[in-house]
Amino acid sequence: MAQTIAIEAAVERSALFEFLLGMGDNTLVLGHRLSEWCGHSPALEEDIALANTALDLIGQTQLWLGLAGEVEGKGRNADDLAFLRDVREFRNLLLAERPNGDYGRTLMRQFLFDAWHYLALKGLRASSDPRIAAIAEKTSKEVAYHLERSRDLVIRLGDGTAESHARMKKALDELWSYTGEMFVNEAHDAALAAAGLAPEPESLEAEWNTLVAETLCAATLGKPQGGYMHRGGKRGLHTEHLGYVLAEMQFLQRAYPGASW
Amino acid sequence: MAQTIAIEAAVERSALFEFLLGMGDNTLVLGHRLSEWCGHSPALEEDIALANTALDLIGQTQLWLGLAGEVEGKGRNADDLAFLRDVREFRNLLLAERPNGDYGRTLMRQFLFDAWHYLALKGLRASSDPRIAAIAEKTSKEVAYHLERSRDLVIRLGDGTAESHARMKKALDELWSYTGEMFVNEAHDAALAAAGLAPEPESLEAEWNTLVAETLCAATLGKPQGGYMHRGGKRGLHTEHLGYVLAEMQFLQRAYPGASW
Repeated sequence: MAQTIAIEAAVERSALFEFLLGMGDNTLVLGHRLSEWCGHSPALEEDIALANTALDLIGQTQLWLGLAGEVEGKGRNADDLAFLRDVREFRNLLLAERPNGDYGRTLMRQFLFDAWHYLALKGLRASSDPRIAAIAEKTSKEVAYHLERSRDLVIRLGDGTAESHARMKKALDELWSYTGEMFVNEAHDAALAAAGLAPEPESLEAEWNTLVAETLCAATLGKPQGGYMHRGGKRGLHTEHLGYVLAEMQFLQRAYPGASW
Repeated sequence: MAQTIAIEAAVERSALFEFLLGMGDNTLVLGHRLSEWCGHSPALEEDIALANTALDLIGQTQLWLGLAGEVEGKGRNADDLAFLRDVREFRNLLLAERPNGDYGRTLMRQFLFDAWHYLALKGLRASSDPRIAAIAEKTSKEVAYHLERSRDLVIRLGDGTAESHARMKKALDELWSYTGEMFVNEAHDAALAAAGLAPEPESLEAEWNTLVAETLCAATLGKPQGGYMHRGGKRGLHTEHLGYVLAEMQFLQRAYPGASW
């Protein structure tokens, strides 16, 4: 009996660890992608705004991966998890690792992610784990602002010139097949939901669809119809792009183990 | 007296080490750049040809860096030198690390390099160090073929369509300021030349100019006039591009030290 409880607790801990890695890896990888724009954005104000969003996401990573390390209980901190894991151990959505493309595509990726992120954090504010609820509470303010901004820009660029409209349409078509993964329940998700730790991914889909459809309508873009959806990121099966992100992101800690300043 | 001789020998050994790093780093970095085209070239035959050139260059790297490690005498082999040095320790020409750009630009970079490489190896076949002479003898056959090929393609693309001509002209203008570094004598070069180990870089310039001018004329491109020339690669002062190349190239040995298969 005691053994059963211990096994169940261990299962739940590993499920929680996976979940927290997913939250932290999304913000880490997407934050890194956004940081690639720093100094290259089409306008100074945009450059600063995107760099700030990147910083927010990296800051959130610190919280999620910090808690992941605590839950894992093997002495790994947020830096260890960010800089010393290899591709197959990353749990981010494939959407987060998509290359930036042009500025419009970066904003479209951001909007599709922000809409999910906002709804996920809203659910997590009611988590039965007070540590998760506290992180969700703190970060959802930032993410509400990210969403406001990316939504506004998707509408302005979609409902802009013929050129900007065409680019946003292309970006949407290219990214759409990476959105389905947000709502796929993995093995551990039911256990987490049953314990009141986190909402099931599929429970967010209806509200996300409504929010996205409304925005894409205002942007005169129209919402794509279902279609094939990529998946695998949440189980560590990534596209070739993540390896290049990690090679660059992890170089310092890989080349100079334990370096600090 | 014995002490003076020992110091002189040490100075010469470090000069020779620097020189050998330069030879090996050129072929390593350019070979890596070419490998980026593998599976992406505009035609299958070109894809295979470029991948073969890349393989030749990586093979030559093995010889140059292997000898560099031997001369250094600190137990580092070619792999250690390729995968465990950081940017400032690389001695390649800045030209070698220039991004690929389009296919025409890659070929133009290749031609400008091949012409220098061919002449450098021709001189090195007469090196007073039989190990250097042997590597030069072996590799100059491959490089003569690289030059024949890149020269032919520069002519065909330069003297091709209006589109290909314009692209080759742009590539030439962009790359030209990275050619001057090939002929700059660094501190150690005079000592090496005095010992009969390697020709002075500046001694190759006239013949290179003739070869390049003749090819660019046949390509209807015209040779750019002098102008500002970048330098620093041979002293370890690189552009931002090399760091990204190394992050990608060194990832495996950095993440899994000592890994072999």
